[in-house]
Amino acid sequence: MTLFKQATIIGLGLIGSSVARALRENGVCEIIVACDASPECLDKVAELKLADKTEADLQKAVDGSDLVILATPVGTYGDIGQAIGQALDFGATVTDVGSVKGCVLKALSGVLPEHVHLIPGHPVAGTEQSGPEAGFASLFAGRWAILTPPQDADPEAVEKLKKMWEAFGSKVEIMTPEHHDLVLAITSHIPHLIAYNIVGTAHDLEGVTDSEVIKFSAGGFRDFTRIAASDPTMWRDVFLNNKEAVLEMLGRFTEDLTALQRAIRWGDGDALFNLFSHTREVRRQIIEAGQDEEAPDFGRPHEIPPEKQAKD
Amino acid sequence: MTLFKQATIIGLGLIGSSVARALRENGVCEIIVACDASPECLDKVAELKLADKTEADLQKAVDGSDLVILATPVGTYGDIGQAIGQALDFGATVTDVGSVKGCVLKALSGVLPEHVHLIPGHPVAGTEQSGPEAGFASLFAGRWAILTPPQDADPEAVEKLKKMWEAFGSKVEIMTPEHHDLVLAITSHIPHLIAYNIVGTAHDLEGVTDSEVIKFSAGGFRDFTRIAASDPTMWRDVFLNNKEAVLEMLGRFTEDLTALQRAIRWGDGDALFNLFSHTREVRRQIIEAGQDEEAPDFGRPHEIPPEKQAKD
Ligand SMILES: NC(=O)c1ccc[n+]([C@@H]2O[C@H](COP(=O)([O-])OP(=O)(O)OC[C@H]3O[C@@H](n4cnc5c(N)ncnc54)[C@H](OP(=O)(O)O)[C@@H]3O)[C@@H](O)[C@H]2O)c1
Ligand SMILES: NC(=O)c1ccc[n+]([C@@H]2O[C@H](COP(=O)([O-])OP(=O)(O)OC[C@H]3O[C@@H](n4cnc5c(N)ncnc54)[C@H](OP(=O)(O)O)[C@@H]3O)[C@@H](O)[C@H]2O)c1
Repeated sequence: MTLFKQATIIGLGLIGSSVARALRENGVCEIIVACDASPECLDKVAELKLADKTEADLQKAVDGSDLVILATPVGTYGDIGQAIGQALDFGATVTDVGSVKGCVLKALSGVLPEHVHLIPGHPVAGTEQSGPEAGFASLFAGRWAILTPPQDADPEAVEKLKKMWEAFGSKVEIMTPEHHDLVLAITSHIPHLIAYNIVGTAHDLEGVTDSEVIKFSAGGFRDFTRIAASDPTMWRDVFLNNKEAVLEMLGRFTEDLTALQRAIRWGDGDALFNLFSHTREVRRQIIEAGQDEEAPDFGRPHEIPPEKQAKD
Repeated sequence: MTLFKQATIIGLGLIGSSVARALRENGVCEIIVACDASPECLDKVAELKLADKTEADLQKAVDGSDLVILATPVGTYGDIGQAIGQALDFGATVTDVGSVKGCVLKALSGVLPEHVHLIPGHPVAGTEQSGPEAGFASLFAGRWAILTPPQDADPEAVEKLKKMWEAFGSKVEIMTPEHHDLVLAITSHIPHLIAYNIVGTAHDLEGVTDSEVIKFSAGGFRDFTRIAASDPTMWRDVFLNNKEAVLEMLGRFTEDLTALQRAIRWGDGDALFNLFSHTREVRRQIIEAGQDEEAPDFGRPHEIPPEKQAKD
């Protein structure tokens, strides 16, 4: 379903390149223009034929586009907005895929012209990998995309963007940026923070060697290392730009952890058992809602070929 | 390779039933006897033909066995030891698969007769599921098994047990129970604790509904719900029996988290970036060591059939 004439994607990493593939695969626009700060990235995009045109210059890249999608770390939005502001086509839609939404209006509303539709967005989907080769068209299928249009947003422009995400296989939810940032603080930002933190803690111990941490990681630790392998720049920008909600949720997490610590110290088995019993239900609901694998261990393969047996 | 004449497994859950399958598949013993407190479990074991004999009575179950494997929650060991002590064959090996090791000698050395070989063990492998149907023979392949024999243990008995785990495809490491409990506190117990904790925190929030937590769990949260769906009895017993090491490691974790919190509060992007950069390396090493999947997102499938698209 053709919704746009020409779409410009700025930042062709995991998410930007997945958007490029999904736009193409679902025939959502006629022409795809790719723009990235990294020349190697644009070469890769050309090699993989992810766009009809690659363009290093931001102003030239947005020229003639009725859709512009920012897919760079959120800390770059101010500068990018400044650069493209005057070059944007009349009535173009400007959106993004950033993991924080409150900061988008702050960074962009002052620098974009009145005549464009600024409608921030966030696909709640991803992997721990980065770059144009890591993306794939089905990344958004079965996942939710959140839009946080300003109150005075043009309903038609919002509707078109909603149709784009639906064409990618996503369900769309509309909410305020403030609510988005609170919800994602607990479902995404705090999980990443504590995963980064425990991997850091494990690395710094004196009594336990790194090699032991690696060898015995199948006890649970390895699950955390996946998200702690996510892009450092992207995640630095998330925490710098969603400070309030992250600190608020971190406060709750720490309070609960202190209670759990006390239960362990006092040997309160009932308190432990009660918490451990009701968390199981949350997983069941996530699987029922189609948001994770039913197969045990995330469906990791368990038939291990001899050459992949445990190594020192 | 036949190492034992008759092996009795006590507790035929995920791990016990996987041991039964692996014993059979690798021809490690001639006869397998299954014993469990739950009659439904024993019925299932008989139905699945996981053992040559099922026996509800502990004393009858160990009679004539040269290998006895405890695969129940560690909190049950004292009572089980008391029950089987006098019924054990002369020179039998008694081992276990429990996730804590310091407590095993405490619970069992007083109640088992001098003439048996008590050699505690722990396969560092598992899934979030429970019960005899959840097990499989290849669970231990490519993973590490830890043995914590007492200083005066019979070398031959230790060697035989080592051969058993190697026959299952595991590599074996020998260490003291104290060191085991410290290493596993960071690679397994703390990861489970913080996973249980964040799932609990998310469930109790006022500003964010449970349904939002479920819908947007693909942002990272769902990774934590897998291990927070593990068996509550087993995990209660782990925390009650590895109090010291868990509290010690939790203290380190909390200290580091406080530093991270401060970096966010003060907008210290460099501190965040530095931590987030070196954690990636740990994941790379885990993959290189064959302890996790190289495929992004744990290899979760991303081609989602239409009937499994996102649902409310
Ligand atoms: N990863 C996820 O799971 C996920 C999920 C949902 C949303 N998001 C959001 O999606 C956005 C992109 O994340 P990603 O994972 O796709 O990151 P990524 O793979 O690291 O890609 C980002 C790309 O943007 C380029 N870039 C950086 N600054 C730029 C600038 N000023 N102008 C033009 N290009 C620039 C980068 O080039 P260099 O390599 O030269 O820096 C890189 O090619 C972020 O806002 C993130 O919050 C990510
Ligand atoms: N799950 C893992 O990932 C993992 C990994 C490594 C080691 N371990 C260790 O393996 C052991 C078993 O864990 P699991 O995951 O296999 O648990 P599980 O699936 O819950 O199985 C435990 C079995 O033991 C039975 N049982 C409980 N108390 C008993 C008693 N007093 N006498 C006889 N049978 C009894 C249970 O019966 P009921 O159902 O009636 O209670 C159940 O059938 C634990 O010590 C655990 O620390 C677990």
